[in-house]
Amino acid sequence: MTIITSKSNNLIKKTKKLLQKKYRQESYLIEGWHLFEEAQNSGETFLHIFVLEEMAERLPNVTNVTLVTNDVLKELTDSPTPQGIVAEVTMPHRELEELQAGRYLVLEDIQDPGNLGTMIRTADAAGLDGVIVSNKSADIYNQKTLRSMQGSHFHLPIWRTDVIRACQQLQIVGVPVMATTLSQQSVDFRVIQNPSHFALVMGNEGQGISKEMAELADDLLHITMLGKAESLNVAVATGIVLFSLI
Amino acid sequence: MTIITSKSNNLIKKTKKLLQKKYRQESYLIEGWHLFEEAQNSGETFLHIFVLEEMAERLPNVTNVTLVTNDVLKELTDSPTPQGIVAEVTMPHRELEELQAGRYLVLEDIQDPGNLGTMIRTADAAGLDGVIVSNKSADIYNQKTLRSMQGSHFHLPIWRTDVIRACQQLQIVGVPVMATTLSQQSVDFRVIQNPSHFALVMGNEGQGISKEMAELADDLLHITMLGKAESLNVAVATGIVLFSLI
Repeated sequence: MTIITSKSNNLIKKTKKLLQKKYRQESYLIEGWHLFEEAQNSGETFLHIFVLEEMAERLPNVTNVTLVTNDVLKELTDSPTPQGIVAEVTMPHRELEELQAGRYLVLEDIQDPGNLGTMIRTADAAGLDGVIVSNKSADIYNQKTLRSMQGSHFHLPIWRTDVIRACQQLQIVGVPVMATTLSQQSVDFRVIQNPSHFALVMGNEGQGISKEMAELADDLLHITMLGKAESLNVAVATGIVLFSLI
Repeated sequence: MTIITSKSNNLIKKTKKLLQKKYRQESYLIEGWHLFEEAQNSGETFLHIFVLEEMAERLPNVTNVTLVTNDVLKELTDSPTPQGIVAEVTMPHRELEELQAGRYLVLEDIQDPGNLGTMIRTADAAGLDGVIVSNKSADIYNQKTLRSMQGSHFHLPIWRTDVIRACQQLQIVGVPVMATTLSQQSVDFRVIQNPSHFALVMGNEGQGISKEMAELADDLLHITMLGKAESLNVAVATGIVLFSLI
């Protein structure tokens, strides 16, 4: 097998573009052995696997393998400490019609990739049926989001869509929409006890949920705070409410 | 009032050193109006206040004010978008003997400044009596920690100390030590119902709590996870358990 040693190799130049959101239409890059193994366990399709020559023997029996040098590999990730493997994975596309009765986390315009990834990981740990992410949220396939998610996007379906339409669709199939708000004109989250189905909506870090979402929601929830903090981090708030609901 | 326009001014050079942990023995820097106002509301002592000339009128009646140019102010913060004010604040020192019966969060070797700050902010929102941070944890007065804390360190006391000794001290005054673990050889956190006092211990992101802490603890707790995620982010886990305990 040949080894790519030049950063100006055409395949490398083309693949490197996937680090920019505008080029991520059909595929994205994952970095490191942990994510690679998660992807493999989930039966993902690898379009390309770039691996350091000295680590190639760690690879199971897979195709589409390209050997690269360390300098070339570094071109394909923004991680300061790449772990020897980068893979190009097919991006799933999901339709609103696939939404069925179940338990969902809905993220409306989450700005920070770290928060977005942590919230999807939390939904996974809570055993939810899926996560719905608004079009204006941070990108799911941003390398920072991927690091925070720790592979959870391979464990549960994620819809990137118009969250208002998604919530309306869920209401049609009998799922109550519960939106969190900082306003005290809402019930404490502990009032809701073990709902069989729900769509829990968390809003933007600064602005909270949209007016439209507040009007659409079946229930408005807040977390009663006892100290002097003005708010909780949105990922922490997600964990508190989700693990109370399940 | 004169205005400092040179980065090589001696006061600026001396103050700038406070961005490095080794120079933060007696004081530290806060950046931005929100933190400045939180500090003022908490009656903190300002050793110096550095403010842009055009923003000086926003300042209340305070002493130790130094006008600076934008370039000089940028020397005093690692924020990419400084908001016109940096202040040097006296660092509190607390003794173990001050620990009384109450509700505490104990952080053992938390590595990430963002996690550390978010956890202290969560303890504040839960109305706890204080936070105890191990000597090996990230620095409380790191600018990243300060941004995540959002002023919570002005709302509740923080001890930076030997957490084993602190927990022994709390046990002496009748506070049960509850340590979270990833091991299933422990009880689900929901089993513990509304304890009047507690010291909840959260461990290092990768390693969890120390062996010594596990032996010392009165209760070992875990969060039962339902999905395929291997773990939760430590700040999210803190929120889930704390808001169940209070």
